[in-house]
Amino acid sequence: MASEKVLRMNAANHEISYADNSVFQKQIILKIRPIIEESITDAFKKIVPICMKVADLGCSSGPNTFLAIWHIIETVHGICQQEQLKLPEFEVLLNDLPENDFNFVFKSVPGFYEKLKKERGDMLQKRCFIGGVAGSFYHRLFPTRSLHFIHSSYSLHWLSKPPVGLENNKGNVYMARSSYIHIYFLIIHLNPKLGVVKEADVDSFNLPLYTPCKEEVAEIIEREGSFEIKELQVFVVEANCSSREELLGSKDIWVQKGKKFANASRAVFEPIICSHFGDAIIDKLYTRFATLAANAITYSMDHKTLNIVVSLTKKDFYQ
Amino acid sequence: MASEKVLRMNAANHEISYADNSVFQKQIILKIRPIIEESITDAFKKIVPICMKVADLGCSSGPNTFLAIWHIIETVHGICQQEQLKLPEFEVLLNDLPENDFNFVFKSVPGFYEKLKKERGDMLQKRCFIGGVAGSFYHRLFPTRSLHFIHSSYSLHWLSKPPVGLENNKGNVYMARSSYIHIYFLIIHLNPKLGVVKEADVDSFNLPLYTPCKEEVAEIIEREGSFEIKELQVFVVEANCSSREELLGSKDIWVQKGKKFANASRAVFEPIICSHFGDAIIDKLYTRFATLAANAITYSMDHKTLNIVVSLTKKDFYQ
Repeated sequence: MASEKVLRMNAANHEISYADNSVFQKQIILKIRPIIEESITDAFKKIVPICMKVADLGCSSGPNTFLAIWHIIETVHGICQQEQLKLPEFEVLLNDLPENDFNFVFKSVPGFYEKLKKERGDMLQKRCFIGGVAGSFYHRLFPTRSLHFIHSSYSLHWLSKPPVGLENNKGNVYMARSSYIHIYFLIIHLNPKLGVVKEADVDSFNLPLYTPCKEEVAEIIEREGSFEIKELQVFVVEANCSSREELLGSKDIWVQKGKKFANASRAVFEPIICSHFGDAIIDKLYTRFATLAANAITYSMDHKTLNIVVSLTKKDFYQ
Repeated sequence: MASEKVLRMNAANHEISYADNSVFQKQIILKIRPIIEESITDAFKKIVPICMKVADLGCSSGPNTFLAIWHIIETVHGICQQEQLKLPEFEVLLNDLPENDFNFVFKSVPGFYEKLKKERGDMLQKRCFIGGVAGSFYHRLFPTRSLHFIHSSYSLHWLSKPPVGLENNKGNVYMARSSYIHIYFLIIHLNPKLGVVKEADVDSFNLPLYTPCKEEVAEIIEREGSFEIKELQVFVVEANCSSREELLGSKDIWVQKGKKFANASRAVFEPIICSHFGDAIIDKLYTRFATLAANAITYSMDHKTLNIVVSLTKKDFYQ
């Protein structure tokens, strides 16, 4: 599986688009705002650049694409107003894989400028320059020492390809325990018995995903040696925002939630699943996914996601 | 007419795409190679940057998108080899309006890197970073003093909008004499009589185009004051490459050529025409266009285009 070609969120003109189904990812970005704020404040005050160069790795295409960037620009603007510093120019480079829906991203740029002008004034808008860079962050993406601040959210768990030696990994589609991924496991493993997919295809299917624990993240960063860890936290996000009473009260809500959950997953995983199993199974797969989620087999009421946020400084950055 | 929204070449997945119908624009880029070579050599030798930042304004999406960039990188590579200078990194920003088909551009980036690696080696490829910037060059697109070299081909004749005061411009669709544009004039003006389009729509139609003469270009640059003219040339390109014998010999060739010419024009003007007259007329319009061109009413055997090439240096660039 050539992950770089199939690893993309569903495009904006797709029936089940990532743009319409990325509320959960938005929650995560909003949750880590204080840490971004602290990091950007720290970096900006130390360098006070004439032009602040910022990148977002794995920007995808949807309402979240500009969320972190907006927050970064807003924070610097706030610092400059408060401390009477000259507002820098901003060169922002939005990165994702070449198959990402960059047309949607670029069509949203004028709206971003418009909003900036309306809410923060002409001067800030005129100093902002948004661009895009297509490529995998498993390779180099930018010239040497050309960036001041890099943001990346819900991207680093994607591998460049499934690890080598998984050809006979028949028991799993993925290298960790996770109720979320188990839905795929369950459905895809049931399907050969129903004649929907071939057993050999199921056996060879592996998602290019890995979700490390906090200690693994710390160890890898320390071993690599280029970065200093400023902050490393694990935090919980409740994927289900309804109250217990609400959930126990109505079956309809569950059906709706199951569908929503299935769509959010489909917006992310559809290209990968289609490239391996073909397009024919996709509607059936997600109808069953929605039913399973609605029946709370795996999507129980206390469904929580564990997330890691890490803030790093390049060791030679201020030299 | 909001030109920025409708001014785009036909996308790569369009039946008559710009990608498949831009041979003429390629001819122009190839023709001015010596001037690009001279300009880039001059600029590079004066600055010898660690990272050379290059932009292409109006890159569109098709095989020509990477043509000038390839040539610029290749020229610098040649100079470095010849003069044993350290090869710089290249940060290339491809610019076009937000409605341009950037998905096609970005999907072509890995192929560009691959070709660079194959033909010029690993080292050059690893030092190249391609990005995209969506926006009109009638506004600022890049941070202050952030570019070393800017290329733009067959873009600057596009206006940001038709000039003010053309509301009653019933006699023309355009502000200059040109056999090419006269085809549109002829066809569109014939159509109300055939009931295909409304006369009021014809009267209010104006292409956001202006093709100045050499003297006008020189005057505008001098009046603006920021740039020094290094070179200003007019050159001719024969849009018709067949021999006289060939053309006189067969009617089929003319039919084919008429169709090709109509497609090349359609790939450029379709979005503008559709946005004003609606989609319904488009097939009929270009069938007639092809017939007229084939019959050599306007597309005569000695069809030539006059082109202006200008090479400028920013006055304070080397300070």
